[in-house]
Amino acid sequence: MPELRKDPVVGRWVIISTERARRPTDFARDPVRAKGSNCVFCAGNEDKTPPEILAGRGDTPPNGPGWTYRVVPNKFPALRIEGDLEPSGEGLFDRMNGVGAHEVVIETPDHQGSLATMSADALADVLMAYRDRLLDLKKDPRLEYVLVFKNHGEAAGASLEHPHSQLIATPIIPIMVTEELDGSARYWQMKERCVWCDIIRQERRERHRVILESKGFVALAPFAPRFPFESWILPTRHRSAFEELEVDELRDLATVLRDFMRRLNATLNEPPFNFMLPTSPLHDAGLEYFHWHLEIIPKLANVAGFEWGSGFFINPMPPEQAAAALRGEAG
Amino acid sequence: MPELRKDPVVGRWVIISTERARRPTDFARDPVRAKGSNCVFCAGNEDKTPPEILAGRGDTPPNGPGWTYRVVPNKFPALRIEGDLEPSGEGLFDRMNGVGAHEVVIETPDHQGSLATMSADALADVLMAYRDRLLDLKKDPRLEYVLVFKNHGEAAGASLEHPHSQLIATPIIPIMVTEELDGSARYWQMKERCVWCDIIRQERRERHRVILESKGFVALAPFAPRFPFESWILPTRHRSAFEELEVDELRDLATVLRDFMRRLNATLNEPPFNFMLPTSPLHDAGLEYFHWHLEIIPKLANVAGFEWGSGFFINPMPPEQAAAALRGEAG
Repeated sequence: MPELRKDPVVGRWVIISTERARRPTDFARDPVRAKGSNCVFCAGNEDKTPPEILAGRGDTPPNGPGWTYRVVPNKFPALRIEGDLEPSGEGLFDRMNGVGAHEVVIETPDHQGSLATMSADALADVLMAYRDRLLDLKKDPRLEYVLVFKNHGEAAGASLEHPHSQLIATPIIPIMVTEELDGSARYWQMKERCVWCDIIRQERRERHRVILESKGFVALAPFAPRFPFESWILPTRHRSAFEELEVDELRDLATVLRDFMRRLNATLNEPPFNFMLPTSPLHDAGLEYFHWHLEIIPKLANVAGFEWGSGFFINPMPPEQAAAALRGEAG
Repeated sequence: MPELRKDPVVGRWVIISTERARRPTDFARDPVRAKGSNCVFCAGNEDKTPPEILAGRGDTPPNGPGWTYRVVPNKFPALRIEGDLEPSGEGLFDRMNGVGAHEVVIETPDHQGSLATMSADALADVLMAYRDRLLDLKKDPRLEYVLVFKNHGEAAGASLEHPHSQLIATPIIPIMVTEELDGSARYWQMKERCVWCDIIRQERRERHRVILESKGFVALAPFAPRFPFESWILPTRHRSAFEELEVDELRDLATVLRDFMRRLNATLNEPPFNFMLPTSPLHDAGLEYFHWHLEIIPKLANVAGFEWGSGFFINPMPPEQAAAALRGEAG
């Protein structure tokens, strides 16, 4: 019997479609592996990107070789840093100028590198770069939100294969974040507890959707996942904003993320994936009802008309089975 | 300068990213054309589907040849028609049995047919089948909503190439429909006018986003489209529910849809696409604030991490240019 499950934060229902269930290995597609090299993000080609905003360097001068990661403006930005918002109407419609920031985090000079193969220290430096960019962009009063995300593999929307993530800063809080904030606030009003903390407590007690744990983080398959093998990594201590993380917590997160990526690659043959880092709005730090988290969604199937028209997702992989597979238990 | 635009119904912002603008023809990919034939939906193979629920037939007996369209249960249904909902909790989570209906509308016996090449009468019969199924499923008190949709081409999620659409009836009103209903109701509370009627009036006056019109319908590019060439077809007279349509209106809609599909195919080289038919909930007919509509989204690019994490869509094609291209004006 298929099952309907409700996301406890935003109230979105999903269909866990057991009639269409498959084994974990049936989801594997061609692995995402870098084929070319010497791309615009490779070491030696620093002049092919806009000048760097931030980089992991010893004594080397900016915009030359000798770095472990670089943050540069996106050469084809979705939003522009210059200008004023100038909101205006067009009859009943609303518009404003596309002011914001769009940056690329080149995660490693190694074209063939990946989150699964980088050293934990190098990955921690990348996570620290996210934090530093959040803290810096927070100073711009025009900006309300920063979303850090990663597209890995062409099927997941990546146009370049060199390992990189991105951030887009927007002058508006994105609607999906507003929905998460509103849902979390409703739960707080009812219970005076953070819904995310409650989820973490329940999942750690029940264990069947937990993938792995560290001192300060847990990776789990959510109760009502939209996609097969959708996974979340959350801090077990209440934290509403990513940029509140201390250095030792970032190192712990790097280890968990790397371990998770290795398990995902082993289970699904190096799949294309997206990750997203929902965190508090820039000017709302310290929320008692919201909890930042990392969402990872392998790109295994095309989203179709029913999902686009309803917001109701059909997922053929029960999260309990996905978590078991990612824990390495036989499917 | 990129522009931010807000959907006036659900409040979702999109980025119209002129920095990434391309000509209409740059979006074309490989055309979707049927390669095989003699599939399970072809004439002569009626025994390969579950028994038909409804069909366009003269005097021929059910489940044999001699039909113009057939409606059959989906052989691998996302939801099952048998059983009770039995809602239950699992700690803080909510679940219920996956009760509902999942049907396939085989639009024509011709494996190579399409919405653009069928006769307008045959297409009107298919639309009438949607209406008849809505009216029939409305009798089931367990069901709250029916979404009619179509996936055309593998990239749009179609697993079979024979022309078909689908409907899924759910025991819950889908979240995206709830958001449209809530947004429409808010506008009504403010203005005591239907927001959709207001949009139609403004677009018909301004013309630059109108693609084509008939006596009773208008096809337009919405002000804040999520996707390049996203298009809506709406009845110009206020109608909240698709199943309220009269036969002559269905014939008019068939002609508009066929004309629209021909324009889309000519502009984008027979692209993969989805369409969805948001209408009122089954037991809420006659809403003064809601207006059914047909949404068509060509599947031209992969949705990536920023969209999944934010609900904020980046669209490189301004709707005014998309509408001009679909009207046949030089780009």
